[in-house]
Amino acid sequence: MPRYALRIEYDGRPFAGWQRQDGPASVQQSVEEALRALEADAPPIAAAGRTDAGVHATGQVAHADLSRDWSPFRLSEALNWHLKPAPIAITACALVDGDWHARFSAVERRYTFRIVARRAPLTLEAGQAWRVIGPLDADAMRAGAAHLIGTHDFTTFRASICQAKSPVKSLDEIVLEERPYPGGQEIRLHLRARSFLHNQVRSIAGTLERVGAGAWPPERVAKALAARDRAACGPVAPPDGLCLTGVGYPDDPFSRAHGE
Amino acid sequence: MPRYALRIEYDGRPFAGWQRQDGPASVQQSVEEALRALEADAPPIAAAGRTDAGVHATGQVAHADLSRDWSPFRLSEALNWHLKPAPIAITACALVDGDWHARFSAVERRYTFRIVARRAPLTLEAGQAWRVIGPLDADAMRAGAAHLIGTHDFTTFRASICQAKSPVKSLDEIVLEERPYPGGQEIRLHLRARSFLHNQVRSIAGTLERVGAGAWPPERVAKALAARDRAACGPVAPPDGLCLTGVGYPDDPFSRAHGE
Repeated sequence: MPRYALRIEYDGRPFAGWQRQDGPASVQQSVEEALRALEADAPPIAAAGRTDAGVHATGQVAHADLSRDWSPFRLSEALNWHLKPAPIAITACALVDGDWHARFSAVERRYTFRIVARRAPLTLEAGQAWRVIGPLDADAMRAGAAHLIGTHDFTTFRASICQAKSPVKSLDEIVLEERPYPGGQEIRLHLRARSFLHNQVRSIAGTLERVGAGAWPPERVAKALAARDRAACGPVAPPDGLCLTGVGYPDDPFSRAHGE
Repeated sequence: MPRYALRIEYDGRPFAGWQRQDGPASVQQSVEEALRALEADAPPIAAAGRTDAGVHATGQVAHADLSRDWSPFRLSEALNWHLKPAPIAITACALVDGDWHARFSAVERRYTFRIVARRAPLTLEAGQAWRVIGPLDADAMRAGAAHLIGTHDFTTFRASICQAKSPVKSLDEIVLEERPYPGGQEIRLHLRARSFLHNQVRSIAGTLERVGAGAWPPERVAKALAARDRAACGPVAPPDGLCLTGVGYPDDPFSRAHGE
């Protein structure tokens, strides 16, 4: 039974999130339905990041087991055909070993959180960034973010429903990018870690926004972290600004594959 | 009667274009309705660029005459309130002299045309870029574009319904920017001119795409231009990729205004 790694891009707005569930359509369900249009008995798929409702991805990775030997090119073409008109696309596809696992083989996740600070509501990018009134002090946000780098107990920045066994995570990088935006400014937070807790990025983004707005001094981020208390966290940012941009593997299955 | 310059951003997808007309809603009509919610007898407005259906703007400029003295800040806030939920936003507002005209005072228009070359359909940016199968040779496109810089008779790159008196225009700049895009590549064409003919940017983008795809040698762009014949043009690119990013004035009304 050949196994295929799929790199998946989606607009999170219409979906209940990655994970299959009762109720509104999930991204997982949509991809599984496309797979079952090719092979009726295709089993469920597993993904590297279980994104929440409204969260986007340009670099989600999942793996799928199929009965027939598909060329990766033909498989991605067929899936994209069956996925239409859902805003989900397979942007790379590769044959992998049977013990390769999209979630358990992953050694790095990369997320970007976009904040647009301006008075006017968003138009072209509505739902794709968190709009705040602003302005934001990028240097203060950088100073606040620096307290979070490294291995810490991130209980403060963890959803109460988080299922991870331990709240201790290593946050390898937060790069803050500032750019002009019509009528204001944009801040992009690029975060990198082996794995994240549930709502960790949105909790960090919401907290750093408070720092940028001047409501929190940067040192309060260190105190909030040390408190190991959900109540010490800033407001959790909305899903709009969040995008899973990439997943790292010791041997990237897509590096020599179609789509790169 | 005070006159206000408005910088306007919109997602062109739901609109019949800038200009008021019978039938589907236009951007002009939506902005005029917001103005009339403030002053019932507000006259029609004029804009620098009459964008077509599906064409976007991050830097459209219009002017509006009102009876009352509004602070530019309060006026833009009130307009954004009344524009909701249409994907139109006022991102800057300034009081201007009574003889200042958004269209006739303009000395420069800037457009960006986005082409994404990849096999997979677009998801997050569907309707905001022209997706072609690709790949595109950026250097060949640059060589083709170079033939268009300067003052020329652009009849080849002009819609048959174009109302301009003369087909002679000066194209000051085409900058081609290449960037990676998940599963492929993106080409952004940045064009700058005093003014453009109807469909000129989309005609140029569609022609340069043929060059990038290898279907046209770059020199064929020079021959097409010299032909002064609409039939010599490449296919006209769809509106999705086009965005009016800015309008230049001898004395920028927004440079000292709210929103900058």
